Amino acid sequence: MKRVVAEIITIGDEILYGQTLDTNAHWISGALDETGVKVIRRTTCGDVEEEILDAFRIAEHRADIILITGGLGPTNDDLTKPCLAKYFDCDIVMNKQALSELEAYMASRGRTLNKLTRLQAALPEKCEIVGNERGTACGMWFNKQGKVFCSMPGVPHEMQYMMREKVIPRIEKEFELPVIYHKIVRLAGIGESWLAEKIEGWENSLPENVSLAYLPAFGDLKLRLTATGKALDQIKGQTDDLIRELMPLIDKYVYGYDDDSLESVIGRLLRKKHQKLAIAESCTGGFVAHKITSVPGSSDYFNGAMVPYQNDMKIDLLGVRKETILEYGAVSEETVLEMAGNVRKKYKADYGLASSGIAGPGGGTPEKPVGLIWIACAHGDEITTRKLNLTKDREVNIRITAIALLTLLHERLVQND
Amino acid sequence: MKRVVAEIITIGDEILYGQTLDTNAHWISGALDETGVKVIRRTTCGDVEEEILDAFRIAEHRADIILITGGLGPTNDDLTKPCLAKYFDCDIVMNKQALSELEAYMASRGRTLNKLTRLQAALPEKCEIVGNERGTACGMWFNKQGKVFCSMPGVPHEMQYMMREKVIPRIEKEFELPVIYHKIVRLAGIGESWLAEKIEGWENSLPENVSLAYLPAFGDLKLRLTATGKALDQIKGQTDDLIRELMPLIDKYVYGYDDDSLESVIGRLLRKKHQKLAIAESCTGGFVAHKITSVPGSSDYFNGAMVPYQNDMKIDLLGVRKETILEYGAVSEETVLEMAGNVRKKYKADYGLASSGIAGPGGGTPEKPVGLIWIACAHGDEITTRKLNLTKDREVNIRITAIALLTLLHERLVQND
Repeated sequence: MKRVVAEIITIGDEILYGQTLDTNAHWISGALDETGVKVIRRTTCGDVEEEILDAFRIAEHRADIILITGGLGPTNDDLTKPCLAKYFDCDIVMNKQALSELEAYMASRGRTLNKLTRLQAALPEKCEIVGNERGTACGMWFNKQGKVFCSMPGVPHEMQYMMREKVIPRIEKEFELPVIYHKIVRLAGIGESWLAEKIEGWENSLPENVSLAYLPAFGDLKLRLTATGKALDQIKGQTDDLIRELMPLIDKYVYGYDDDSLESVIGRLLRKKHQKLAIAESCTGGFVAHKITSVPGSSDYFNGAMVPYQNDMKIDLLGVRKETILEYGAVSEETVLEMAGNVRKKYKADYGLASSGIAGPGGGTPEKPVGLIWIACAHGDEITTRKLNLTKDREVNIRITAIALLTLLHERLVQND
Repeated sequence: MKRVVAEIITIGDEILYGQTLDTNAHWISGALDETGVKVIRRTTCGDVEEEILDAFRIAEHRADIILITGGLGPTNDDLTKPCLAKYFDCDIVMNKQALSELEAYMASRGRTLNKLTRLQAALPEKCEIVGNERGTACGMWFNKQGKVFCSMPGVPHEMQYMMREKVIPRIEKEFELPVIYHKIVRLAGIGESWLAEKIEGWENSLPENVSLAYLPAFGDLKLRLTATGKALDQIKGQTDDLIRELMPLIDKYVYGYDDDSLESVIGRLLRKKHQKLAIAESCTGGFVAHKITSVPGSSDYFNGAMVPYQNDMKIDLLGVRKETILEYGAVSEETVLEMAGNVRKKYKADYGLASSGIAGPGGGTPEKPVGLIWIACAHGDEITTRKLNLTKDREVNIRITAIALLTLLHERLVQND
């Protein structure tokens, strides 16, 4: 079976000039790979008609599927639509279906159409529209002698929604794709090279049709197995067997699979036990609460959080003892112990989390350098603490601390299960 | 003067398959743009000889400078070196200068050369080496009839060092480059198409050497002016004049310039006034506090936040009146009014912010659908509220609400300035 191959074209001067990081091409690459479509080329060109048309022409020669993002705004610098009309030799006309969907979208947000926004529904005559329930620019699908061009908006969440709900299902229907099975094992609390050492023997004995990728991010780590074959049942069974062999080596670090996140797994465990969570975060500044509340339905188990960013707030509002802060400092095991215990009680929760540290880049001392962070997890009267020595980078420190705190909570939840 | 144009080629299956985000092309784009080199195309291809050679050929036709990253490792899947040798029709031979630099690099790290690492000094005969003091793979520079190919390692910090110290200075010496000036105007509280309508006349009268781009993201909007010319002073003055003409049309939406963010500008204003901020966030779940505390030094003006995610927490810990919630509900103007006022007092702040809404995807009713969100900003006894009708997407609602709340605070800070 010949592999179906795709090219991704991203359009926009802001990408070529280095002002916007092209995360769309990256996301689409991953989505196509999971679907069994082989990406052979990615191209970025600017907002220039000849460049865009040239990219279309070259892509059509080498790929079966050409996915395009960007350049769909209503303003003059957005050229994707006129270029598509020219390439497919047709006019741009008001599309009634697109207009009524656009009106419905605007009405649902309590807004009316202005002249420029209305133009979003004017589309090349030869396209089929790909609805966008998340924004004003709809997608366009063109068939040309067995090849597909599909243009999507550049706003990442709109493009992702459109790919997931419309484009991928249609590609799966129109093309014959190999059977691919992905299984992601999600780990926390272990680094990439430590993991690689632990599983070296297992990795070296993987069969030829199964490949392995390490995908690390801020202390969170994904191991992705990809099996290709002819029958889904067969490669699914094969992958499951391989993971069964792997688990004894790594099970204490595994928190979930596939689309699980640390926060969604924690949510499931808390909901199952009818238990509640509260958080007191200083150096993480609200980011841990943000992660917990980004899970739909988190109000079932999350009572609330506080971010006492000043010492007197820690004392007056969270009840940390003044003597503790005077004697040990706000960044200390003693202080996070009280923070975790007190927030648990104040917010009537079963589990209390706390963080306090020097996120940086300023504020460090020889005894307490930037990157020193204490975290704690309280459950009943038992409080576990952990000390982290992180980086000089504020954003990195916040992210790694959040993962470490959620990892600590997850461990406690599993122990008590 | 004809613009010098460049193409960036990144090589690697891990990028095409969506496993590694290509930050190199982004970084090189920005660096070339600042140097006055126009990037006209970016191409990513996999570890396949024909694909790489094809990318070289096409790039040579359209660009003066071709910068290549990736594929320089010593293992079999790294093909950049053999492809360059083939493309420039020469052999790969041990390069004495590269070998002695490699030995010096390894010695400086207290390590010796193994056979595989030694291969890093075997290079296409026709290249000039570009030294890499940060790693083992050196860069290669090829001149071909006035065009330049330069291959660099894929490790970001090695590539960046090489670009900054070696490649950019040499490009500046060998090519005649124009002067470029960028200015970014940052706006909030206005959509792209509304803005475009407002500034249509001004935009249409822009001189030929100045271009304009709209860069929107979640209710935050960047307008980028790019001027090219011969003297920096002249185009800087010209751009400043254009922005002075623009300002009366949009000044109520402008919060900053260039690298400013809404949260950093708010921080500067609060610090200047010696005023403090506190936040009570329900539907945004800690995300607004996270944005505020992502700014280094925010402890100077941020007292703290609370996330009362349950009604009894709003009542017991934030002092919202039980009757208010019973009569109007947690998602109501009345409730956010009390939340903003109370958090300001409890946290001894000058400004208090609050959010309460139905972030979704569940929890909506006919009267209060998903996406209905109330926000408030208290300053002294004056409290301003705003009602938002957003989307069905939880993450999007959280992000847009955060920007709307910060925009409201910014407006109040400017009014009181």
